[in-house]
Amino acid sequence: MDIDVIVLAAGKGTRMYSDLPKVLHPLAGVPMLTHVLRAANQLEPRNIYVVTGYQAEQVGAHYQDTVEFGSLKWVKQSEQLGTGHAVMQAMPQIDDHGLVLVLYGDVPLIKPTTLQLLTRLASGQGIAVLTLDTPQPHGLGRIIRDEQGHVSAIVEEKDASTEQRHITEINSGIMAFQASALRNWLSRLTTQNAQGEYYLTDTVELANQDGFQVAALTTEDSSEVQGVNNRLQLAELERNVQLAQAREIAMRGTTVMDPARLDIRGTLALGRDVSIDINTVFDGHNEIGHGVSIGPNVYIKNCIIGEHTQIQANSHLEGVVIADNCQIGPFARLRPGTELRSESKIGNFVETKKSVIGTGSKVNHLSYIGDAELGDNVNVGAGTITCNYDGVNKFRTIIKDGVFVGSNTSLVAPVTVGKNATIGAGSVITTQVPDEQLAVARGRQKNISGWKRPIKK
Amino acid sequence: MDIDVIVLAAGKGTRMYSDLPKVLHPLAGVPMLTHVLRAANQLEPRNIYVVTGYQAEQVGAHYQDTVEFGSLKWVKQSEQLGTGHAVMQAMPQIDDHGLVLVLYGDVPLIKPTTLQLLTRLASGQGIAVLTLDTPQPHGLGRIIRDEQGHVSAIVEEKDASTEQRHITEINSGIMAFQASALRNWLSRLTTQNAQGEYYLTDTVELANQDGFQVAALTTEDSSEVQGVNNRLQLAELERNVQLAQAREIAMRGTTVMDPARLDIRGTLALGRDVSIDINTVFDGHNEIGHGVSIGPNVYIKNCIIGEHTQIQANSHLEGVVIADNCQIGPFARLRPGTELRSESKIGNFVETKKSVIGTGSKVNHLSYIGDAELGDNVNVGAGTITCNYDGVNKFRTIIKDGVFVGSNTSLVAPVTVGKNATIGAGSVITTQVPDEQLAVARGRQKNISGWKRPIKK
Amino acid sequence: MDIDVIVLAAGKGTRMYSDLPKVLHPLAGVPMLTHVLRAANQLEPRNIYVVTGYQAEQVGAHYQDTVEFGSLKWVKQSEQLGTGHAVMQAMPQIDDHGLVLVLYGDVPLIKPTTLQLLTRLASGQGIAVLTLDTPQPHGLGRIIRDEQGHVSAIVEEKDASTEQRHITEINSGIMAFQASALRNWLSRLTTQNAQGEYYLTDTVELANQDGFQVAALTTEDSSEVQGVNNRLQLAELERNVQLAQAREIAMRGTTVMDPARLDIRGTLALGRDVSIDINTVFDGHNEIGHGVSIGPNVYIKNCIIGEHTQIQANSHLEGVVIADNCQIGPFARLRPGTELRSESKIGNFVETKKSVIGTGSKVNHLSYIGDAELGDNVNVGAGTITCNYDGVNKFRTIIKDGVFVGSNTSLVAPVTVGKNATIGAGSVITTQVPDEQLAVARGRQKNISGWKRPIKK
Repeated sequence: MDIDVIVLAAGKGTRMYSDLPKVLHPLAGVPMLTHVLRAANQLEPRNIYVVTGYQAEQVGAHYQDTVEFGSLKWVKQSEQLGTGHAVMQAMPQIDDHGLVLVLYGDVPLIKPTTLQLLTRLASGQGIAVLTLDTPQPHGLGRIIRDEQGHVSAIVEEKDASTEQRHITEINSGIMAFQASALRNWLSRLTTQNAQGEYYLTDTVELANQDGFQVAALTTEDSSEVQGVNNRLQLAELERNVQLAQAREIAMRGTTVMDPARLDIRGTLALGRDVSIDINTVFDGHNEIGHGVSIGPNVYIKNCIIGEHTQIQANSHLEGVVIADNCQIGPFARLRPGTELRSESKIGNFVETKKSVIGTGSKVNHLSYIGDAELGDNVNVGAGTITCNYDGVNKFRTIIKDGVFVGSNTSLVAPVTVGKNATIGAGSVITTQVPDEQLAVARGRQKNISGWKRPIKK
Repeated sequence: MDIDVIVLAAGKGTRMYSDLPKVLHPLAGVPMLTHVLRAANQLEPRNIYVVTGYQAEQVGAHYQDTVEFGSLKWVKQSEQLGTGHAVMQAMPQIDDHGLVLVLYGDVPLIKPTTLQLLTRLASGQGIAVLTLDTPQPHGLGRIIRDEQGHVSAIVEEKDASTEQRHITEINSGIMAFQASALRNWLSRLTTQNAQGEYYLTDTVELANQDGFQVAALTTEDSSEVQGVNNRLQLAELERNVQLAQAREIAMRGTTVMDPARLDIRGTLALGRDVSIDINTVFDGHNEIGHGVSIGPNVYIKNCIIGEHTQIQANSHLEGVVIADNCQIGPFARLRPGTELRSESKIGNFVETKKSVIGTGSKVNHLSYIGDAELGDNVNVGAGTITCNYDGVNKFRTIIKDGVFVGSNTSLVAPVTVGKNATIGAGSVITTQVPDEQLAVARGRQKNISGWKRPIKK
Repeated sequence: MDIDVIVLAAGKGTRMYSDLPKVLHPLAGVPMLTHVLRAANQLEPRNIYVVTGYQAEQVGAHYQDTVEFGSLKWVKQSEQLGTGHAVMQAMPQIDDHGLVLVLYGDVPLIKPTTLQLLTRLASGQGIAVLTLDTPQPHGLGRIIRDEQGHVSAIVEEKDASTEQRHITEINSGIMAFQASALRNWLSRLTTQNAQGEYYLTDTVELANQDGFQVAALTTEDSSEVQGVNNRLQLAELERNVQLAQAREIAMRGTTVMDPARLDIRGTLALGRDVSIDINTVFDGHNEIGHGVSIGPNVYIKNCIIGEHTQIQANSHLEGVVIADNCQIGPFARLRPGTELRSESKIGNFVETKKSVIGTGSKVNHLSYIGDAELGDNVNVGAGTITCNYDGVNKFRTIIKDGVFVGSNTSLVAPVTVGKNATIGAGSVITTQVPDEQLAVARGRQKNISGWKRPIKK
């Protein structure tokens, strides 16, 4: 049966104390709302309606260029009159023939498999509620089941009897409905309650009145239905996600030195026999080849790393493609557009940017290589700088195969150093160096006797 | 009623295995004793008496220049004859009209609100004991209450009956008294017990004999009364404090990527929408503006950081004032006396010290800027060094607005580079560069053909 | 009585998903098998037999040059026919007069003291089993004891009655035997069981048949008998070891800022009053003197560090000997062969390798010191590079006492700078500098007026 998903994302998120809309706060590197949309998208729904209200424009703008969710539709809830009211805003666009699944932009870890089961139940019985069995039901609406196990009522804590308060099954708020039935129930909701709002939960009572048997699906994974109301809850959910990810990759064969000190924000593809030391942070999309070792204290964002490459302590990589058997760090800083060919080496206190480092080439110490193309087997001495910027324009440096660049050299781009050329230490190279030649550009040494050291002033 | 506080800080701390007096060991960046003194100070006491014994001079010296606790008085306990004896040393200086509150230098997390309640109780009933309700009472003195809930006795574990051992309320040692009653009870203490010491706790029995109704105040926060006897307990208390702080700032609206990997040692003021990545350490007093993002693996000590400034991975900041919208790091090292004006940028492997970096100026790579003053919109090329030291004296470098400093430049201070001047790469600048001029100081490039590479020896 | 130890290390370790043999996966810096061999070695056994099968050559090769275990003998198990079969492979070489202790290469944390007790029991009763009392016996073989407390049977979970499943004492697999009895029982093992293998555990039944009273030794330390089947279990065991180590050194008097963020891989000797900040990693063998402070985020491998030396944030040290009162970092990178004499200082973004830094000498910023020998009280300016490599050979730089090296200097080795000499900033020094002289090697500054800045292209 066709499914329409309605995601409620209109809340103000007051306790986040943030200028960023609550549903855009990131969890494991992506906004909470994106997690929900991805789960919804797995159902291949007819449409996904996102109901926004507070900071609606900011939320919409974030997804403006997103193609991941083709069928995303935005619905504005101008007044915040409760969950039932929010759902009402989307209903005019929704066909009677099909199911409606209601999700929440601040309940990010709901699983697609759970949603599939829930919609299947709603398809059969007209209405289905996702519940949680929890040792800590305090403060939450309890699920009252009849003898057949159907939900006869949802009782809020403050209205619950002592006996009902001992019930450990609670309402997650996530529900699925036959669209026509939902439309009918929504029309009968009232605001005659404590908060003066239209409660979506009240559909359960109406369904019972109409003789429906309200189905319940119970999860025992509390993180799946955990809502985020403040940043402490967000931080706790983040650690749950991270620990679950760390445990999963360890089970699949990655050495994780400390599962509690690994952060995977985004997506990560791992080869066989990868070893990850403490405090590694992965951001965006990363692909790591067989036998790679990483860390400790390494940051990697949007990188592809070849087999058996070693990334040593305190390195920082972003937007880099690295071939096999390279050596990186410690204290290497590889910026976007860097490409390392196989068996190349970037050592300590070296920065690279928009540059190719050829096979077997080495930049071992204290250098800046920007907008440069290094051939194979180039050796760049310590303290070498590509002067790629004249204050307004950027220029390229070409260093051909087999070049030896002496230490403390400045290469004033645009400039080309020919094959197998040698550059003397401390040179400022401003014009082309032909193949095989030696270039020197520095003052001659003078030793001066009778020199008096400065004295303390 | 006037309060005199007596803080016991005379113990040897044998199990710390340290040359540092136990009460000076830091917790969350300040000595344990300072935590106690701060809590006591909130009561606005007449005087705070610190009873020291072992390493008394070292403890006193630490507070010699402290003005935070105006009424601090030092009392020497020459022999270690028990808690009662320690309190006796201070009593001669204390007026009979008032209350006496007894605290411990190695019980650092006692809360001022708790102490206010405790002294209020003592004011009414003459004597009040702070107790803890704990699931782990093992080894600690149990509180025996009478039918009215008053403390009829404190029974040490070894003297306790099987039934008494099931009591989960234990004695914290923290007590408050009417001064005159305390003086009387102290005079009646004896050393006829296992350790041959004067126990302050024995005042409870004497009070009962005298017909006093001993009040008890119970806390459920065990960290409040947790004493430190070894560095493992200190480490555990440190983590309690840190986790509590992390949770508190998250609740108030700071994004904390991992509450278990945040260290706030000292005081921290946070603007709205601050984001703190893993392993950030704050030391001393720091003030962080709205929208600042920090980390991972950043160390910040005694800094003021303006709005929307970004501090990237692995940066190290101490004694720095940073304006709005600056970009720092990764791998930046800002030392004391650095001032960054708005929209300035300090990049990787750059060290600054006692320097001003003007609005919009950039020092992006591999440079040392010390004792320098950079105007606005200055661009400092990679590998630039201010040569501020001649071996005995330090000199200043002045770089005026709009200057472009080529890479690998050495600026031999004292030296001034005029407005909009340009310095060629690899130059050693030893004398003034006038406004708008180009300065070059380097050898001319020679390309030498027929050059033979060295051969393996 | 003489002991022969048999270590079973033939398993395939399928769930490790690794090219490295399971027993070679490191725990706290050394292979799991090494942990087992070290525990066995403490018993001073006649021989240690390691039974290998899958990847036998790779395992053997790892220990080829190891002298730590003099009596190591390798036994090949060509077919994997169960634990009983594995033990059979070693028996032909083992004398009837003595004990046989069976250990497992993937149960790494077994304690020597436990093994001593177990072999003593086997010596008396012919057979002894190590058991674990655990709240989580699920899936494991239960120990059935008779009225005298002897083991009458070991029942696998799938064969256990409901009552037997409530037993919380489980079989660790670690056993000790009188050699002659073991030989007899092994000859009577059959493969008539679910897996068609020879189970070593079946000796318990045979021993009971023969009238032996099977002794059991119970441990409550589950990590001691925890086997590793996948990398998540390995990671969990790693954290157990690390936390235990951190707690132990804290109890003995080391300040550990966070016991959950300390990694000691290998061996560590600590002086008094050492302070270790968060995320310090120790690798190999390290010796740290009194009063040393380390961290945060520091990596230290195979170093000896003198008293009161301070190692600041984000430093990386390997194979270094450091004297007393030195200052290192932040962001220092000391490579093998570095020796720092007392009161010397290595600052930020400085790399050293195979070099001696004399007493009181300073290399404070952005330098590379390789293959160099610095005398006492040398001051090396920022950006100084020892050009020790000509592309094929390495040469030494000698800098004598009291030398002042100006910033951005290149020292082209082989070269010697004489006592108290001075080198001007930005110089390239290619030949000897005599004592006391000033050497300068740089271009003269020209200021050029009428210079036109480049314009945007």
